[in-house]
Amino acid sequence: MVVPIILIVALIAGVISIAAAIIFSILVLKEDPGNEKMIEVSGYIEEGAKTFIKTQYKILSIFVGVLFVVILLFLPSELTEGKIPIIELEANWEQAIAYLVGSAASMFAGYLGMIIGVKANTRAAQGCTKSLDKGFDVAFFGGSVMGLAVVGSALIGVSTIYWIFQTPVVILGFSFGASTIALFMKCGGGIFTKTADVGADLVGKAEYHLPEDDVRNPATIADNVGDNVGDIAGMGSDLFDSFVASILAAMLLSNVIFASLSDAVQGAFAIFPILLSSVGLFASLIGIILIKWLKTKDPGKLLNLGTYIATAIFALLGALFVWILTATTEGITRAESWIMWKNYFAVIIGLLSGIVIGWTSDFFTRADKAPTKNISRAAQEGDAVVILSGFSYGLLSVVPPAIGISVAMVLSYWLGGVYGVAMAAVGMLAIVGTVVSNDAYGPIVDNARAIAEQGGLGEDVIRTADKLDSAGNTAKAITKGFAIGAANLAVFALLFSFATEAGIIAAIEGGTGMDLLNIYVLIGAFLGVVAPVLFSALLILSVQKNATVMVEEIRNQFESNPKILEGTEPPDFHKTINIATKGALKELILPSILSVSMPLLVGIIFGVAALGAFIVGAILSGFVFAIFMSNAGGAWDNAKKWIEDGNLGGKDTPTHRAAITGDTVGDPFKDTAGPSINTLLVVMTLTSTIFIGLMLLVNGGDGLLALLEAWLRGLF
Amino acid sequence: MVVPIILIVALIAGVISIAAAIIFSILVLKEDPGNEKMIEVSGYIEEGAKTFIKTQYKILSIFVGVLFVVILLFLPSELTEGKIPIIELEANWEQAIAYLVGSAASMFAGYLGMIIGVKANTRAAQGCTKSLDKGFDVAFFGGSVMGLAVVGSALIGVSTIYWIFQTPVVILGFSFGASTIALFMKCGGGIFTKTADVGADLVGKAEYHLPEDDVRNPATIADNVGDNVGDIAGMGSDLFDSFVASILAAMLLSNVIFASLSDAVQGAFAIFPILLSSVGLFASLIGIILIKWLKTKDPGKLLNLGTYIATAIFALLGALFVWILTATTEGITRAESWIMWKNYFAVIIGLLSGIVIGWTSDFFTRADKAPTKNISRAAQEGDAVVILSGFSYGLLSVVPPAIGISVAMVLSYWLGGVYGVAMAAVGMLAIVGTVVSNDAYGPIVDNARAIAEQGGLGEDVIRTADKLDSAGNTAKAITKGFAIGAANLAVFALLFSFATEAGIIAAIEGGTGMDLLNIYVLIGAFLGVVAPVLFSALLILSVQKNATVMVEEIRNQFESNPKILEGTEPPDFHKTINIATKGALKELILPSILSVSMPLLVGIIFGVAALGAFIVGAILSGFVFAIFMSNAGGAWDNAKKWIEDGNLGGKDTPTHRAAITGDTVGDPFKDTAGPSINTLLVVMTLTSTIFIGLMLLVNGGDGLLALLEAWLRGLF
Repeated sequence: MVVPIILIVALIAGVISIAAAIIFSILVLKEDPGNEKMIEVSGYIEEGAKTFIKTQYKILSIFVGVLFVVILLFLPSELTEGKIPIIELEANWEQAIAYLVGSAASMFAGYLGMIIGVKANTRAAQGCTKSLDKGFDVAFFGGSVMGLAVVGSALIGVSTIYWIFQTPVVILGFSFGASTIALFMKCGGGIFTKTADVGADLVGKAEYHLPEDDVRNPATIADNVGDNVGDIAGMGSDLFDSFVASILAAMLLSNVIFASLSDAVQGAFAIFPILLSSVGLFASLIGIILIKWLKTKDPGKLLNLGTYIATAIFALLGALFVWILTATTEGITRAESWIMWKNYFAVIIGLLSGIVIGWTSDFFTRADKAPTKNISRAAQEGDAVVILSGFSYGLLSVVPPAIGISVAMVLSYWLGGVYGVAMAAVGMLAIVGTVVSNDAYGPIVDNARAIAEQGGLGEDVIRTADKLDSAGNTAKAITKGFAIGAANLAVFALLFSFATEAGIIAAIEGGTGMDLLNIYVLIGAFLGVVAPVLFSALLILSVQKNATVMVEEIRNQFESNPKILEGTEPPDFHKTINIATKGALKELILPSILSVSMPLLVGIIFGVAALGAFIVGAILSGFVFAIFMSNAGGAWDNAKKWIEDGNLGGKDTPTHRAAITGDTVGDPFKDTAGPSINTLLVVMTLTSTIFIGLMLLVNGGDGLLALLEAWLRGLF
Repeated sequence: MVVPIILIVALIAGVISIAAAIIFSILVLKEDPGNEKMIEVSGYIEEGAKTFIKTQYKILSIFVGVLFVVILLFLPSELTEGKIPIIELEANWEQAIAYLVGSAASMFAGYLGMIIGVKANTRAAQGCTKSLDKGFDVAFFGGSVMGLAVVGSALIGVSTIYWIFQTPVVILGFSFGASTIALFMKCGGGIFTKTADVGADLVGKAEYHLPEDDVRNPATIADNVGDNVGDIAGMGSDLFDSFVASILAAMLLSNVIFASLSDAVQGAFAIFPILLSSVGLFASLIGIILIKWLKTKDPGKLLNLGTYIATAIFALLGALFVWILTATTEGITRAESWIMWKNYFAVIIGLLSGIVIGWTSDFFTRADKAPTKNISRAAQEGDAVVILSGFSYGLLSVVPPAIGISVAMVLSYWLGGVYGVAMAAVGMLAIVGTVVSNDAYGPIVDNARAIAEQGGLGEDVIRTADKLDSAGNTAKAITKGFAIGAANLAVFALLFSFATEAGIIAAIEGGTGMDLLNIYVLIGAFLGVVAPVLFSALLILSVQKNATVMVEEIRNQFESNPKILEGTEPPDFHKTINIATKGALKELILPSILSVSMPLLVGIIFGVAALGAFIVGAILSGFVFAIFMSNAGGAWDNAKKWIEDGNLGGKDTPTHRAAITGDTVGDPFKDTAGPSINTLLVVMTLTSTIFIGLMLLVNGGDGLLALLEAWLRGLF
């Protein structure tokens, strides 16, 4: 009885969310786009972004098409715990279609959010000519479109699929679709944006001493395009992916853990993550609207205030809905109600720990805190010392969130077992609408600043835009911490559902657990730890390779046409955008193939228990590298900005140049490799879960090596 | 019957080894120490090294004393599989004394090796005035003293203890003693050497454009001292530690695995690692002597040839001794002989995989191979790009050795189960005499070059010394790969004996295994992955902090006395040595305490299974960081040297300056943090094993949290 009502609530929430996104889009589009020059520049950015996305979506459709066929043919049967499956084309159709829908939904949300983001740029710049508040409003609503589109389309997708198929298993296909898109968007967008950024900085700033965003720099527009495709579309698809994965993990687990309860009660637990995510959406929406009414001189604080408001509303509304759910579920016992309440507390713990992780990122990357200050001071000793300092603090910054996640895991486990851990992930992602909105705000104001510069709006306006920009950076620290922490918890939760499906839980008959003292499991964990390392190396190398091509092109333009530097002729933006696009798409092929093929190979060769350990290894080292790279990159960036604000001698000093080196090294850390790792983890875990039937066919899930071992033992 | 004979063989091998070390020492001391200036400089270096070692040994004695008391009082009973132990002062005495002996043996080997290394510096420089061969001989024999002292004292210690107590358990104390010394020597020495090196480079090279090893630079002598205390004494104690740990792990496992066999056969398996290590010592010794007879133009190839010769001799001699052992062991069945032969093959696989890992390190760090060439080319794009490039290739270089170790583990496991894995570690360390000799050769020729420069021996001699120096770098790549790979395998083997002692092997009654699906085990693994990260961060920060103080001091000397730069007055070497000494000793306290306290805390809070996972996590991420840092650092170093050889524009170009930045960043990577991680892993694993009784007292080894959980579940 209750389940359909909750699904209706979720669908309504989704529709409201999309509607709000459309209304905000219209509001943003109504704003004044500024003077002719601004419209022109903004047009270039839009064109570049569209070109990139179109080319990327074309390649993506091939990738998605191939995986569609693979799912259709190689997905033996529906997942059934522990049993050897057979190929059932009918069941595979469901997954394959869900996969397509998931891909499409993520693409839609990414495209809408990005386009509005691009449109909001110039309008936010123009808003800054009026007041800080006006500029903030335009940028913030522009960003909210992405946040709302993500949550809305994800919720609609998940609830519709669950309604039709009545089982969370099909949501697996949806989630897998979302995560393959996210992988392309994060890696491709990340490589694109840093190719342009690093290229522009290396020639423009270091060789020709042009200021940031100077129109004469041929890579400036590509840099702005990169902000949109990397930070807006990429981050949106990343959180779409984590959001769906967290709901999926909890639902899959509820299927097994509460199997012995009555249908109604089991249904209530299955639907619980969808309910709380819908509540989170309302909370985010209220938070977004409240931000509109609150005025402050400090937009950074305002953004964070929005997060806290959404959290508080979520906690209250969530409690209300838990109360309603326990009150209306037929035949629920007191003990079962109490379990539900305990899981609600696990959700709150997840959410709070997300905020705490955000705070620690904030501490390690803020210019006015000790780590970044020390990094700035290290810049006085030269390039090498600023790198060493940022590197060390980046590594150090891994410790507090690791402890934070561990505490959250222990507490949520105590409250609700592995289902509780999954619910903590749901909690961390509950206010994802707010998180994505805050995050998309960043590149919009970054671009607004660039357009203000290029549109000749004068020093005052640029300073206003700068203020908005630095607010974006403050908020970003928290949202990044959230994104990494949430993806990690979600993947941990998925791991438990993977283990359940694979029948390797020790409590299941014949389940051996994932015993690290088993040599294959141990090696699985080893290879898992190495996977994100390989992945990061490939992505950073790609950026470095492409940036070198970009540098050649920029130098070439400056040398072949001196009028560009004089400012009397515009540079060729198209060529640089083209280089970034082609380079990014070429370079993301290998990482994408690896992310899908590595878990398949490990599972087939070493068996499913080793594959579980592979996932654990990847999560653990992925966490370390993601946090390290994000925070080191953020700290270098802010150290450079702090020096540019006139500290330690200010701009154009050797100290400043050393800080720029730090920032340039940090760019692909924080915007390419670091954030892509999340997505890698989700893709690998979902690949493992979705193809588990295939792996169970190989030597009963024990893998080829065990087969070979047995054969050899027979020989000798 | 057989056991005492083998122990006598081992003791003879040990005594021969020490005797050879003393003979080589005398041969080295007989050489001409060169002109007055050289003797003076060499005297400064010797004085500095002695001061450092003395101060360090003083602090060490406090640390060792405290641990002695802790072992005496808090080590409940002898380790007995699975049982709750009680405190038995008598048994504890044995461990505590063994601990002291292990510490003393490692200190002795380190001191002897280092002193002879220091004496060999100036004599090798003087040798270069005669011929390349002469210079090589002196440096190589100087280095061999360290190699032979290490293996000799370790073998004597291990066999004596085993002879007296008839159980490998007491060797645990010996091994723990060796590893705590290694930790201090590696961390302290590593911080010392890079404080001086980075400080000297930052001011001397970057600000005042002084050449390398210039006498006017006040930190030059400290830099040379650092090479001796960090690379000779540090590396020696590190491999001493791994060598003993690998033997110990195999012996402990044999105790359990072969418990059901007859006493004689069990004894043969227990003594097997000691036998093969003795064989390895003979092989190394023969290799060292053969090197003396082989003359070549390429000393780098000669060093590697020595490794291959030792390997081949070891394989042959080893087979012979296995044949003797199986033929003379009373009542050994054919099946048991076959098991022994299979473990012999596991040993060979270990040794070969050590060489393969060395080759991959070589590939990633040699100037004439693609990775380092690309890093050199990246230097043309500036400091940031050379950092990004080296960082990525460093990460990439983790993949091949990870696969290599995995293959070695699978094969050796197939051949001999976990005992086979332990024997593979023994194999990897069998020719440790050669490895340490080659490694100690490096800093000797490095210093010889410096002394040639400071003693005014002219361009020709310096070029000869340079040639010897670059040979040292080539050999170093292989030996470093060996050191890291061997430590890893040894710790894996120790892990299995830890698990056996802790009773957490799934096959043991009540043993739950280390199931990653258990939340505490999972968190244990998580914290384990983070431990080497924290450790590396602290070490690099220490170097950066101390180098900054050093920089101030050097600048101060130059500014307060202009005659120093004119070369008419010598700088104050003592002050810089003092800064490096004090800084290093102060900064190693926190990492040392952490390395002992972290495993204790994890074991007590989360239980012994989680502690096992903690060790696994630490090994895996430790492997990644150790290889990454060593190889990235090595590649940056060689990229810089390649440019200095006149490539890409040569010295004093922007490209060269960027390469120097890479090298400076790489210095603490490759010489402080990277190689210290090995020791950290061994210390943590031995701490876990030795204090297992204590942890089993806490909630039966399940840890405090499980107790708290049960209590909370009772409440709600």
